[in-house]
Amino acid sequence: MAEYDLLTIGNAIVDIIARGDDAFLEQEKIQKGGMTLIDADRAEHLYASMGPGVETSGGSAGNTIAGFVSLGGKGAYVGKVSNDQLGSIFGHDIRSLGVDFETRPLEGFPPTARCMIVVTPDGERSMSTYLGACVELGPEDIDEAKIAAAKVTYFEGYLWDPPRAKEAIVNAAKIAKANGRSMAMTLSDSFCVDRYRGEFLDLMRSGTVGIVFANEAEALSLYETEDFDHACDQLAKDAQEFAVVTRSEKGCVVIAGDQRIAVPADPVDKVLDATGAGDLFAAGFLRGFTMGLDHEKSARLGVAAAGHIIQQIGPRPQTPLTELPAVKAVLG
Amino acid sequence: MAEYDLLTIGNAIVDIIARGDDAFLEQEKIQKGGMTLIDADRAEHLYASMGPGVETSGGSAGNTIAGFVSLGGKGAYVGKVSNDQLGSIFGHDIRSLGVDFETRPLEGFPPTARCMIVVTPDGERSMSTYLGACVELGPEDIDEAKIAAAKVTYFEGYLWDPPRAKEAIVNAAKIAKANGRSMAMTLSDSFCVDRYRGEFLDLMRSGTVGIVFANEAEALSLYETEDFDHACDQLAKDAQEFAVVTRSEKGCVVIAGDQRIAVPADPVDKVLDATGAGDLFAAGFLRGFTMGLDHEKSARLGVAAAGHIIQQIGPRPQTPLTELPAVKAVLG
Repeated sequence: MAEYDLLTIGNAIVDIIARGDDAFLEQEKIQKGGMTLIDADRAEHLYASMGPGVETSGGSAGNTIAGFVSLGGKGAYVGKVSNDQLGSIFGHDIRSLGVDFETRPLEGFPPTARCMIVVTPDGERSMSTYLGACVELGPEDIDEAKIAAAKVTYFEGYLWDPPRAKEAIVNAAKIAKANGRSMAMTLSDSFCVDRYRGEFLDLMRSGTVGIVFANEAEALSLYETEDFDHACDQLAKDAQEFAVVTRSEKGCVVIAGDQRIAVPADPVDKVLDATGAGDLFAAGFLRGFTMGLDHEKSARLGVAAAGHIIQQIGPRPQTPLTELPAVKAVLG
Repeated sequence: MAEYDLLTIGNAIVDIIARGDDAFLEQEKIQKGGMTLIDADRAEHLYASMGPGVETSGGSAGNTIAGFVSLGGKGAYVGKVSNDQLGSIFGHDIRSLGVDFETRPLEGFPPTARCMIVVTPDGERSMSTYLGACVELGPEDIDEAKIAAAKVTYFEGYLWDPPRAKEAIVNAAKIAKANGRSMAMTLSDSFCVDRYRGEFLDLMRSGTVGIVFANEAEALSLYETEDFDHACDQLAKDAQEFAVVTRSEKGCVVIAGDQRIAVPADPVDKVLDATGAGDLFAAGFLRGFTMGLDHEKSARLGVAAAGHIIQQIGPRPQTPLTELPAVKAVLG
């Protein structure tokens, strides 16, 4: 029996979310809808230019495990914070949900990572990330027993940005494989795909990763195509278990061999803040998958969790996702 | 001409807002709807028991000046943070709104104050405050020129909790008086009134404070009565300029000599988080007052700002209050 339904690995980040308009993005040369890495100087400059913020624990894989346990799953997380106030907040928030989080915090410099998120009036979020302590995540942070004990280990493509995290992932994948477990990843961001296209394809084609999550832009970027069906066909070949592509208001498509299962999005009144949509989709889908539900039901859980998170500020659910009618409709 | 329309003085606090139910309040012996002071050990225990939070700058008078500048006023703030990450966040948030905030941060221990706020499903907030660096606010933090340059100086009754802040207030009041300025206060909390009833009455009767904000419970507590009209009559005598009593969904009453001006609350769909309601009422009212509007119009601005803030998470407006239809209706 698996001790954890899901273990996720990612950049442990505190989000600073502020409202801003398109003119601000232009003035500060922030890529709308994307994630840009920034250094300490740029972080200081940008923070000084930004409006007042709200702080919340974030990080893609951190949001996914938060959503996953909020859906009733048992989860663990691996990510590196520093031993500072923001690191304490990150640790509190994830542990208080019941997530197992024991990665040793970094002592001293650099500080806990932060992501400055500008949310424009259309609800789109544009992210500037200072990686801080995340650059120190390495193979020594992987606990073999935990990977072996997790039905699925999931990581974010963003981990290819810090220097040593990929070693941690490759090690984790070996352990997962040796224990008959699944390895899943998200492609994270189309610019991230652009940076690591070859390596991401290798991860899939070598069978290091069997389950792939992507949004439409990431899938197109991966195969350098503008043809969505072509990207799906390629994903069908490369993702040895299955792939799921999210398409915002168009819902998602599960791609498993010759199968294509499209699930529509739930109607949403107003997108307040798109932060965490993809992360929560993965949370919902993986909750279904690890419960043994079929792809269609799993996708409906993903769509429900994503649809909920974009109608609130921040990427972490503030109330249990099991209380959502759309979740109850699937889980009963 | 006044350089500032409003200067506020208060405990500079970062809020940690989490969802919780009534059973949690009972289990942790938290006074529902109130503000309880806690020490470092209790803060640590309570944080460990609380669910995941969202962090935002807070503090009663800090929220008021944030709302005030969001309504187009020119403002300054005095409050003590520590030179740590939470202190940087507090400073950024208030300055990024355009508020003048130059109080020297404390170097080292204790850290920046935090208020753990449990929001129950009914939207009520229950606060546990660790005062941290606020205990070091003293007369040396008052800049005479700024008080002299502010049309109104406003402070929170909560400042009677830290040891030396009251000296700062008494000094500020002398400067304000010497420059023909108004001095305003909020009674803050009915338990706070209970702790300092005699001193608060002295502040009013001695003319140190001419304008008083209170909610119904605070007004009743001040005069140890259950008769609202009696409390209003007493306030009419004691508040030498005027008093305003807020009554939640019943709106507010402005009390000026023999005058009683009642203004109804705007209808609110759902109270998401009551944090900041009183602070934002004062912001709106004082914006009207410092613009020379009459009491009725000022109260309508207060009601509009308060009604807005309880429909979002956290006590600081995330979008400019001047964009609210109810505010536009008054300001044109």
